[in-house]
Amino acid sequence: MGKTIAEKIFDAHTVDKPGGDIVVINLDAVFCHEITTPIAINDLVARGKDRVFDRSKIKAVIDHVTPAKDSKTALQGKTLRDWAKRHEIKDFFDIGRNGVCHAIFPEKGFVRPGYTIIMGDSHTCTHGAFGAFAAGVGTTDLEVGILKGVCAFKKPFSMKVEISGTLGAGVYAKDVILSIIKTIGVNGATDRVMEFSGPVVDHMTMEERMTLCNMAVEAGATSGICPPDRVTVDYLWRFIKDDYSSKDAAFEAFMAFAPDADAVYADTLKIDVTTLSPQVTFGFKPDQVRSVAEMAGTPIDQVYIGSCTNGRIEDLRIAAQILKGKTISPDVRAIVSPATPEIFSMALEEGLIKTFMDAGFCVTNPTCGACLGMSNGILAPGEACASTTNRNFNGRMGKGGMVHLMSPATAAASAIAGKIANSEIFCEKSCDRGIKG
Amino acid sequence: MGKTIAEKIFDAHTVDKPGGDIVVINLDAVFCHEITTPIAINDLVARGKDRVFDRSKIKAVIDHVTPAKDSKTALQGKTLRDWAKRHEIKDFFDIGRNGVCHAIFPEKGFVRPGYTIIMGDSHTCTHGAFGAFAAGVGTTDLEVGILKGVCAFKKPFSMKVEISGTLGAGVYAKDVILSIIKTIGVNGATDRVMEFSGPVVDHMTMEERMTLCNMAVEAGATSGICPPDRVTVDYLWRFIKDDYSSKDAAFEAFMAFAPDADAVYADTLKIDVTTLSPQVTFGFKPDQVRSVAEMAGTPIDQVYIGSCTNGRIEDLRIAAQILKGKTISPDVRAIVSPATPEIFSMALEEGLIKTFMDAGFCVTNPTCGACLGMSNGILAPGEACASTTNRNFNGRMGKGGMVHLMSPATAAASAIAGKIANSEIFCEKSCDRGIKG
Repeated sequence: MGKTIAEKIFDAHTVDKPGGDIVVINLDAVFCHEITTPIAINDLVARGKDRVFDRSKIKAVIDHVTPAKDSKTALQGKTLRDWAKRHEIKDFFDIGRNGVCHAIFPEKGFVRPGYTIIMGDSHTCTHGAFGAFAAGVGTTDLEVGILKGVCAFKKPFSMKVEISGTLGAGVYAKDVILSIIKTIGVNGATDRVMEFSGPVVDHMTMEERMTLCNMAVEAGATSGICPPDRVTVDYLWRFIKDDYSSKDAAFEAFMAFAPDADAVYADTLKIDVTTLSPQVTFGFKPDQVRSVAEMAGTPIDQVYIGSCTNGRIEDLRIAAQILKGKTISPDVRAIVSPATPEIFSMALEEGLIKTFMDAGFCVTNPTCGACLGMSNGILAPGEACASTTNRNFNGRMGKGGMVHLMSPATAAASAIAGKIANSEIFCEKSCDRGIKG
Repeated sequence: MGKTIAEKIFDAHTVDKPGGDIVVINLDAVFCHEITTPIAINDLVARGKDRVFDRSKIKAVIDHVTPAKDSKTALQGKTLRDWAKRHEIKDFFDIGRNGVCHAIFPEKGFVRPGYTIIMGDSHTCTHGAFGAFAAGVGTTDLEVGILKGVCAFKKPFSMKVEISGTLGAGVYAKDVILSIIKTIGVNGATDRVMEFSGPVVDHMTMEERMTLCNMAVEAGATSGICPPDRVTVDYLWRFIKDDYSSKDAAFEAFMAFAPDADAVYADTLKIDVTTLSPQVTFGFKPDQVRSVAEMAGTPIDQVYIGSCTNGRIEDLRIAAQILKGKTISPDVRAIVSPATPEIFSMALEEGLIKTFMDAGFCVTNPTCGACLGMSNGILAPGEACASTTNRNFNGRMGKGGMVHLMSPATAAASAIAGKIANSEIFCEKSCDRGIKG
């Protein structure tokens, strides 16, 4: 019987089957940030177990509130910093070198096909874009992971999400995942790994695949995952060129984690995106999705472009393409937060930062801050935000605030219009996908 | 009997002398930010007096915590925003267009020689650099100012601070004012207006004069003030060219607020800066000042370049000149916050932002945040910061934290060294004063 990607990864990593559906796997990486990891660190210290299983497999970053907004967050950063220093964790990204975890870790080449990764963060599923199994965990699992390099999971059942057709103008990966979540609901993929495939995924960049996998958790999934392919090889090549004799050799090796043609899936969803239009959320659940056409004219107070979902260079290019030579409506304020220093530098080089500033955007340093209501863009009660982030829960971006999830193109158009608007009205020719060169 | 600058300004603005030393003056401008003004607004509303004396003379900005870090600061911003909208206050600078108040208001041409200005902010004295009388006030005075356009002050006695000699390499306006505060102490100018003059001041740019006046309050002064001159005219010319037939005519008009040769001062301080070396604070009071030479090697955790004292373009040029091609020590984190969007844009254009990022700095949007421990760079207990800000009070930048005040040059050098260091060691030739062209 053929196997899914997740089954192949689990088979290659299983160290114990304590009973029932539970499988214990060893971990290729444990990712850490300053909000959840200090709780684990402090507990490990209190229990006299201040150790790490493998310093080279732990990657840490200060990203949620950076630079620190108060004594509490300063102390959280210090706890992570001191721990990284104490254990000689080389891959620690402090203020100035730091970015949103799910953007900076792939960018540094820390994710590979077949890897198993945990992190105390719900959007860890992002890294599945590389054909890895990556999942968010709670403090106890994180502690065990840091200490022993293993994690217990339910045996993963996979949902096959086959995406065919052609994306129309102004329609992006974000619109695709929003429409999928709308279709299956916020519990539609509970206890499943969403395995995204089909010609649309095959033609997506790694950045687009990350956007797709990032929101798998919003449908209840344990993780999202994309089959590794030559796009994956090309993205990773600068990190792996000493490990393989050629790109072909790397591709062959990665094929160990391609799904079998006769793999068995718990569920299958087939969608055709040819007629899909830009999507946006309207309520406090990520499956409350309507077309931008239906929502056009909805009032907003703030526009936010950034986060682990859509703060990457392609996202900034798409938004800047729409904003170029225009200014945002005086009725709104707008914020853009490039997800990493490398993305910020590229945006600087390409003139995108200037475009954003000339349009009237506030350009912040890389941070998760606003997305989860922690800093750098919190809403006042009664305010609404057009946002490229991933969660629209009640109060997510500030108590009493409303978040409308959308693509960077729709967010940029909404900034200019001062209300929710379709990006097509600002693109004389069709806007491209933000892919350079 | 001749008059000081402050006396001339008061003479031109006095509307009442209710008795004793008290003089009521009318105001040319009331400056507002989102931390202190909402208290006044809410009280005016509660008292049924939600009015403004002259919407064209009120200038407002969100600068202390921007973008908002939590619901409280989001609401403070909203209160100011709604009030500005309600009263049609045209000069309101919202997120994206906002900068540090004492940098953005002069930059927009809102300060002129002879003006009287109040604000609910202690460093309002900065604007004295233009030959204006500008003072920080409490909520009650701010409310009266907003409502009636007047403010009561004690009749101002002036302290003449005559600065002669030549500034040596690596020595800047910040070093001058720190050495003055060291000399006279934190109460040395209480109830005085510090009138800075002499050949060194004559040769200073407006930016340098703002640095000087900014810290007058740290010596207890009601305000700092510099005589208006041709440097003032040149800075303001783009704003005033329709008001005067020529620069000469503007200069003549401004001379109405030059001090008389026979003006009488309550105190006089004469200093020669020729032998002055770079200065830095060591304690929790701004008069605890030592030479950088004495303090070299003192450990630091963070470097901060920004604020109303030293976040202007010349400051960024000086720092970038030292940082160019170098990287900061792995033992510190470093933050630079250009004080306004215009400064940020200039720094972008001149390649300074790239220099800071390449060196490992975190570049934040314009904000006051870290300086007063409100956001974007708070220290954890036990940490120390090499900072270009103006106050080193206990806990100012975070509870249990230490702030070492210094010039941008010394801060940049300290970032590279990872400890307090003299900028001269990184300048092969002498570093210049950051003045363009």
